[in-house]
Amino acid sequence: MAHIIAVDIGGTQIRTALFDSNDANPRQHRRIATHAEGEDPFERLAAAIEAILPPQGADVISVAAPGPLDPQSGIVFATPNIPGWVEFPLGAKLEQRFHIPTRLGNDANLAALGEWRYGAGQGYHDLLYLTISTGIGGGVIINDRLLLGARGLAGELGHITVLPDGPLCSCGQRGHLEAVASGPAIAAYVNEKLAEGRASILQPGHLTGRQVAEAARQGDELSREAFVRAGEYLGQALADFLHMFNPSIVILGGGVTQSSALFIETLKVSARRHIMDQNFLKDLVITTATLGDNAGLIGALVQGQLKLEEK
Amino acid sequence: MAHIIAVDIGGTQIRTALFDSNDANPRQHRRIATHAEGEDPFERLAAAIEAILPPQGADVISVAAPGPLDPQSGIVFATPNIPGWVEFPLGAKLEQRFHIPTRLGNDANLAALGEWRYGAGQGYHDLLYLTISTGIGGGVIINDRLLLGARGLAGELGHITVLPDGPLCSCGQRGHLEAVASGPAIAAYVNEKLAEGRASILQPGHLTGRQVAEAARQGDELSREAFVRAGEYLGQALADFLHMFNPSIVILGGGVTQSSALFIETLKVSARRHIMDQNFLKDLVITTATLGDNAGLIGALVQGQLKLEEK
Repeated sequence: MAHIIAVDIGGTQIRTALFDSNDANPRQHRRIATHAEGEDPFERLAAAIEAILPPQGADVISVAAPGPLDPQSGIVFATPNIPGWVEFPLGAKLEQRFHIPTRLGNDANLAALGEWRYGAGQGYHDLLYLTISTGIGGGVIINDRLLLGARGLAGELGHITVLPDGPLCSCGQRGHLEAVASGPAIAAYVNEKLAEGRASILQPGHLTGRQVAEAARQGDELSREAFVRAGEYLGQALADFLHMFNPSIVILGGGVTQSSALFIETLKVSARRHIMDQNFLKDLVITTATLGDNAGLIGALVQGQLKLEEK
Repeated sequence: MAHIIAVDIGGTQIRTALFDSNDANPRQHRRIATHAEGEDPFERLAAAIEAILPPQGADVISVAAPGPLDPQSGIVFATPNIPGWVEFPLGAKLEQRFHIPTRLGNDANLAALGEWRYGAGQGYHDLLYLTISTGIGGGVIINDRLLLGARGLAGELGHITVLPDGPLCSCGQRGHLEAVASGPAIAAYVNEKLAEGRASILQPGHLTGRQVAEAARQGDELSREAFVRAGEYLGQALADFLHMFNPSIVILGGGVTQSSALFIETLKVSARRHIMDQNFLKDLVITTATLGDNAGLIGALVQGQLKLEEK
């Protein structure tokens, strides 16, 4: 029985789990904060792996990490919430420490793999996964294979320009989908309108997408408008993705997706209004993710399984 | 020696050619007008195939056609310049007529295959091809395989929305790349500005992209501005495509691409301004197509070769 160590590195939490290679229920599981005063995130990560490593070792370490990275070389180019990790050779450092073959993948890419094998995408061969929370990430499966591209950077669906010269994105450019339809972008829109004097049950200040979603459920007009606006841009981007990839299923993950039915309805209507030919929508399934917070970890498991199957 | 009949169906011309399966120089070649008073385009196509069909027959007929179509079922959903071809079973009709296995592909998709095997893309595994003329089409090769998608509709790169609520596109929607950066779109922009009273060496009326390119070369300010504007939107779309596919080479075909160096320079600067991470541009080759008008026909040849290699 082969063993897989799956790792999901988030901005606030690092999760590690030990899996039997054919079982999605972990034998061991750890969850720690990514950051602690005066500690190196890599050392914290290594300790969380050590804590679940069986005496006989494991066959592969498979890591899901945010931000652009190179799966071939194992280099993290940049990661939003770990400022020290720039051109960081995470794969090599883990192999050096544990002497176990290590594979690295973008967390949203791997979540797509997770949904494909264990979640909402089971049985589909051409899948598009989009996760919408504090950021927007994506993963594309074509003919049962994860799209990686020449340097492993493909599937950055959150950085499609939907509004030229629009709001500033986390990446430094303007008008990307993430800057218009992520949770913080929805909250920023409401804040902006509140500052202009619009009526709402919300007060200006440190708003979150979650608060706006709750206000929208209570019927707050401005909050509903904010979700409709985000849904419209998301539908526009979705039509673009359909034109590019022509998937048979679209899976929507992340907190924002779960927070508002209005959002999903709007995005469907908007996609229809931007699509060049209705055949792209024929028999297309649009659904929500089923793996929730486990998507990255389960995705890392699947990446590990695929690595073992390669042999 | 296997024989391939390659067909390229354009709005104004139909081309047919007989190839030995491993040779890109045709043994026979025909070129006829697509339309003739009182004649059925399918019958004209069949006659152009008959004219080059050797006595012993051929192993495959491989057809490049414009517009959304389903390569699996051989159905053309719609084709811009042949109004009667709606949900048209072109593949089945050709097989019925000639009793030869027939394969259908989108012309821009196949041009990508042509450039990959015989043109500017030789030796590259992850290729993005974009053709810009009266329309904008595309083709994407991932890991040496043409991206088709679930229903064969993938790679419609000209229908990405670059300007929400922008000009009307040939497909009926608004603000697509084709509606902003194709030859007719560039000419329409100049016409619009002329109508507003802008100075130019051009006169308002039936302008073409070619005329605007010539005026730009002569230093006409408005014409230069029109190409810069188109190049900026194209660069924005190119950044989107890089985020999606992360290719190692981008090949630009079509008359508009050839017509203005200004256009290519502008699109490179614009892509850089929209890209989320400079690693997408590292070692990326951006170049022009080398197969010219033969791209569709040579692409059909390659599709035929791949069909034979499958066996």
